[in-house]
Amino acid sequence: MTTTIIGTGLIGGSFAIALREKGLADHIIGVDSSATNRARAKELGLVDETLPLDEAIAKSDLIVLAIPVNHIPLESIKILNNVDKQIVMDMGSTKEELCSIISQHPKRGRFVATHPMWGTERSGPDSAVQGAFAGRVTVICERERSDSDALQAVEKIYTALGMPIKYMEPEEHDMHTAYISHISHITSYALALTVLEKERENEQIFDLASAGFSTTVRLAKSSPAMWAAIFIQNKYNVLDVLRENIHQLNIIRKMLENDDYDGLYRIIEKANTISKII
Amino acid sequence: MTTTIIGTGLIGGSFAIALREKGLADHIIGVDSSATNRARAKELGLVDETLPLDEAIAKSDLIVLAIPVNHIPLESIKILNNVDKQIVMDMGSTKEELCSIISQHPKRGRFVATHPMWGTERSGPDSAVQGAFAGRVTVICERERSDSDALQAVEKIYTALGMPIKYMEPEEHDMHTAYISHISHITSYALALTVLEKERENEQIFDLASAGFSTTVRLAKSSPAMWAAIFIQNKYNVLDVLRENIHQLNIIRKMLENDDYDGLYRIIEKANTISKII
Repeated sequence: MTTTIIGTGLIGGSFAIALREKGLADHIIGVDSSATNRARAKELGLVDETLPLDEAIAKSDLIVLAIPVNHIPLESIKILNNVDKQIVMDMGSTKEELCSIISQHPKRGRFVATHPMWGTERSGPDSAVQGAFAGRVTVICERERSDSDALQAVEKIYTALGMPIKYMEPEEHDMHTAYISHISHITSYALALTVLEKERENEQIFDLASAGFSTTVRLAKSSPAMWAAIFIQNKYNVLDVLRENIHQLNIIRKMLENDDYDGLYRIIEKANTISKII
Repeated sequence: MTTTIIGTGLIGGSFAIALREKGLADHIIGVDSSATNRARAKELGLVDETLPLDEAIAKSDLIVLAIPVNHIPLESIKILNNVDKQIVMDMGSTKEELCSIISQHPKRGRFVATHPMWGTERSGPDSAVQGAFAGRVTVICERERSDSDALQAVEKIYTALGMPIKYMEPEEHDMHTAYISHISHITSYALALTVLEKERENEQIFDLASAGFSTTVRLAKSSPAMWAAIFIQNKYNVLDVLRENIHQLNIIRKMLENDDYDGLYRIIEKANTISKII
């Protein structure tokens, strides 16, 4: 199967490695707006060749979108305008706007809207790793809108990668991911900004930072191109959960201002119940 | 060296294991207000025997306080009232109130105020682990207030455990740890509370939670007895940094409300600079 990967960074690059490892792609074409990334993806062996989008589409059986979510809807339309029997899939973190934009396209059936729940804080071709995706859940939205051959091909890939598949509506997906993925990035960015603002002595951060701080702040290293786009595209869900988060912090702040040890104890005990779930 | 460990939980238990492993304690006495913990600490072999505090002090060369910080100052006074040549050290996460409370005690010289920057989200004797502490920084406050034999004995222990030692004033310590350790726990508790509040479908949390969410929320499993006490005892520093954290979240919220992609991009780029430090 000849596969085109659009966006040869963390997600696209790791997907290329996984496809090749599982024998699911015999020729991989890279498409990337950055000449540096194109050269690097080839150098690293993530892709066999790089081509302009139109040439890549014509040569491919499968076309994979692994670019920031603000670019996915328009690129998807461009690709659908040019496909015949090819299968198109995306790997973006938001689904509602995308599914809405492509909903009336005559070739909608060739598209499979997916979101594999995997990532790291790194970005670019050099961040692509072997063994990504395995054991994580992948989401497929609006399965009934995809042609059955396209859906089955994509399901086969994710299954081969060791990913359990969950089927969801786009609205449902975007709401849950706001709670479970997007908000952790916002709190991590805010934590990094807080420490950078308050702690002028970098040496002390470096020396004193416990493992807890390092893991909590790790997500704050994640790419602005990827995450600014996700936040904007999932604006209403993210705002909803962000307002709740600020509310919870204000409850803690007020308890602390009132020396309310019992209140803090109770609220921490409640937070501890997260361990029953995860 | 006969050592008494007061508080046979995560920190005290792990310290007992490390002391024995490095040949720094030939007899370890456990003191714990919980009968369950005393029995369990003995069963696990963390301690050789358990005794009431006064008897333990009389038999010991070194007395280690590893209890929640709200109990450390008063226990420290009780212990200092009963020591002769013994060395007393604490392992608490706050230092200002403790150092102030013991400052006028005639036996102040026997005390070494320390904070090894290690921990996990678990608690109790069963959470004690081998290989704790190694490679992490430990802080010693007011070194000049400790007798030189006491200071040297404690320095020798931490060095044997593979911990670089930093010397700080208590005020300085409490300010830095608020930024670097205490605030990450607050943001993690708030994140857990937010998700528990907003996401009623626990199965979705479990299925969709990415590695990012799991690590960010891990600290929210930490003990209420330990952390409510730390927040209250370091109230002014923690409030200072918590207010800044809420301020940063509000900046992000406003940018999102205004669809300000460029603003979000810039602020994320700024947060990314944390990777230069940690």
